[in-house]
Amino acid sequence: MIQHDTIVALATAQGISAIAVIRLSGKDSIAVTQRVFKGKNLLEANTHTVHFGTLHHQGKLIDEVLVTVFKEPHSFTRENSVEISCHGSPVIIKEIVKALLTEGARLAGPGEFTKRAFLNGRMDLAQAEAVADLINAETDNARQAALNQMRGGFSKEINHLREELIHFASLIELELDFGEEDVEFAKRDDLRKLILTIQSYLSSLIQSFDQGNVIKNGVPTVIAGKPNAGKSTLLNLLLNEEKAIVSEIAGTTRDVIEDEIVLGGINFRFIDTAGLRETQDVIEAIGVERTRDRMRKASVILYLFDLSATNLTDIQRETEELKQLAIPFIRIGNKIDKANPELLNALSQEDFVLISASQKENIQHLKDKLLSFFQVSTVKSGDVLVTSLRHYQNLLQTHQSLDRVLAGMSEGITGDFLAMDIRQSLHYLGEITGAITTDDLLENIFSKFCIGK
Amino acid sequence: MIQHDTIVALATAQGISAIAVIRLSGKDSIAVTQRVFKGKNLLEANTHTVHFGTLHHQGKLIDEVLVTVFKEPHSFTRENSVEISCHGSPVIIKEIVKALLTEGARLAGPGEFTKRAFLNGRMDLAQAEAVADLINAETDNARQAALNQMRGGFSKEINHLREELIHFASLIELELDFGEEDVEFAKRDDLRKLILTIQSYLSSLIQSFDQGNVIKNGVPTVIAGKPNAGKSTLLNLLLNEEKAIVSEIAGTTRDVIEDEIVLGGINFRFIDTAGLRETQDVIEAIGVERTRDRMRKASVILYLFDLSATNLTDIQRETEELKQLAIPFIRIGNKIDKANPELLNALSQEDFVLISASQKENIQHLKDKLLSFFQVSTVKSGDVLVTSLRHYQNLLQTHQSLDRVLAGMSEGITGDFLAMDIRQSLHYLGEITGAITTDDLLENIFSKFCIGK
Repeated sequence: MIQHDTIVALATAQGISAIAVIRLSGKDSIAVTQRVFKGKNLLEANTHTVHFGTLHHQGKLIDEVLVTVFKEPHSFTRENSVEISCHGSPVIIKEIVKALLTEGARLAGPGEFTKRAFLNGRMDLAQAEAVADLINAETDNARQAALNQMRGGFSKEINHLREELIHFASLIELELDFGEEDVEFAKRDDLRKLILTIQSYLSSLIQSFDQGNVIKNGVPTVIAGKPNAGKSTLLNLLLNEEKAIVSEIAGTTRDVIEDEIVLGGINFRFIDTAGLRETQDVIEAIGVERTRDRMRKASVILYLFDLSATNLTDIQRETEELKQLAIPFIRIGNKIDKANPELLNALSQEDFVLISASQKENIQHLKDKLLSFFQVSTVKSGDVLVTSLRHYQNLLQTHQSLDRVLAGMSEGITGDFLAMDIRQSLHYLGEITGAITTDDLLENIFSKFCIGK
Repeated sequence: MIQHDTIVALATAQGISAIAVIRLSGKDSIAVTQRVFKGKNLLEANTHTVHFGTLHHQGKLIDEVLVTVFKEPHSFTRENSVEISCHGSPVIIKEIVKALLTEGARLAGPGEFTKRAFLNGRMDLAQAEAVADLINAETDNARQAALNQMRGGFSKEINHLREELIHFASLIELELDFGEEDVEFAKRDDLRKLILTIQSYLSSLIQSFDQGNVIKNGVPTVIAGKPNAGKSTLLNLLLNEEKAIVSEIAGTTRDVIEDEIVLGGINFRFIDTAGLRETQDVIEAIGVERTRDRMRKASVILYLFDLSATNLTDIQRETEELKQLAIPFIRIGNKIDKANPELLNALSQEDFVLISASQKENIQHLKDKLLSFFQVSTVKSGDVLVTSLRHYQNLLQTHQSLDRVLAGMSEGITGDFLAMDIRQSLHYLGEITGAITTDDLLENIFSKFCIGK
């Protein structure tokens, strides 16, 4: 399973920049680099040292570079590794990668560096997955949650509980060897206690997923309402305010921040509802399957009413239709400055957020209301949160199969069935940290990484 | 002029990536980094060593990082410098930069790292300018030309000649001190020889600018012709072929390669002539000032005739109008497969490239013809080329003022005037390498750099 050939990839973002870093890993990575490098003999260099020199290939001088050498096992992959820091020109990057390919390296696949780190035992699977989450973190909360998971998170505790469970499984299997003798190496009471401890821990992890999922994946949000209700004005208002904050530090912001706002550490992603927005009336259009599909992807709907052009009857009808979607929604009364005072008075008794998007009135109240749907607190170092659907599903499966173990014990099933149920639990649990893996599982996980990581 | 405060900037390209590098320079850069770093004491670290650790700020763990320490004068800027290699998330980059700003660093201005390298004597001004050229190189030739200049290029020779000239200027100025005594410390024949040597070197540099400019800046190219002559088909044909080659190595190509092709080491940039292309007839539209302006930016025009829908009279008329633009042009007869054989025969006697864009016929011939306008050979290591308009202008001015020195000597002007003319030459020459600079000149040069370089 473990490959030792030399892989190479650009590790920094594409584009013109001061510097770019090209990364190699593999037994021969230092030797491969040495073939194109003029400067100190890298093969004799100490680990974690940086060397200035020039890169040459086929008689051509490519660039002046800094080369950093990492010697196994003191590297991210635990293999010999090299980082070449060159001038950040796409032409130079291409020439260097070409030269290294000629000299024996091959292009790394997505996530192949991290995969090697996992296969070589530097981190478990949950930690490896967190590396990708960390890179893709869009909020500070998401960053912290990923970092905590990368630094161990629930891995250690799960491994500990798993080992205790393995111990019991072995004892029960040992009992089987004694056949008819009716020995009991695994005390059933102790096993029951352990399972309850494990389940309690699993439950706390499972419960954290609601929050973890919102933190990692953000909240798909739809702004809906009749034409002219002020949907674009509201969206732009929300977006622009945030953009100003995001661009605070020049040079560090993303290129494209479109239709996303971060409120209270949560990333609200406005679903591209080009179709939705253009529809004459969203609620009326519910019959259209495509629109319905998009609506269903939303975790929350901000539904705008134009208070200058509606009445209580219409509002009630639209509210009834909104309820049928079975998605949390906030009813927003817009254009309060132009609204009928009677209507305004009636709505102030209901669960309504009354704003004026054009006058920027009451927007903070809307934000608070939106946030109140998602109980997310600031993630701190060491907080353990499940953010991955894969982990969540495996935790649920483990919990359920442990239920079966408990039920089996109550029903007094035989040791061989009991052992089978425990082994099943261990399988689900082991897949989380990668103690048990398949090629498909790894392929599925690492193919989602970027190349160079 | 030299500042010693600590500057910080993202040095790699923006975007989500495996790793990003944040760079600091300045006397206290290691101390500033140490304030947020947990790991080895960086102040005690050797230069060119890499240290794994974590970054913390205000009680928050930001990321696991590798920190490289460079101690003065063994760094790019010749100051204490630090490179922080973190996970390539915009959120993480922002948090780290924020932390460093709080701890005493300030955001670097454009090119400020390179400016410090220049001010601290690590490189002269022409070399510093080449750093930006290297990063922005769009072809392998441009890369090599920039690299050669960065590694010394003409700097050494110019400095050598300049010193000899300074020697003569000093001798002449010394003569002036002796007033009426009619001494001649500076042998006029030797001075004349030196000036001719300098002028000969300057001429070779000046002549190289034609090639250097094409290599560095590419060739602005316009495809023109009547509607339906096949302009888009030809452009797409040229672009697509090249795109396939450019994308050869996954992950190393630019994000957007639009309307640019590299032929024979030259970057042909097709001017955005949205206006031009949509104009019903380019030649007829010459009267429109905007179109004319765009046309004038072109270094070469590819002018297409639809041979299936034109005749010799029209061709001659359009050719006359083309000539009036006074820009090199290539006349291309398209749709040869549908052309009148008589017309085809007549054109084959003329300076015409006959193609079929849709059938992809004779495209290589067109490329060869296009390249024949620009005598660019492959740039090799050590080749000296002037690629900067600034250098070109200063070289011309130096050459002209040396002409005045020669003329003055022939006319037997007095030593004080002779010395003045020489000092003027020295001024122009010194501005190239930065022996003579002004704040304006430096501001003008480095403001064009990217931040982080």
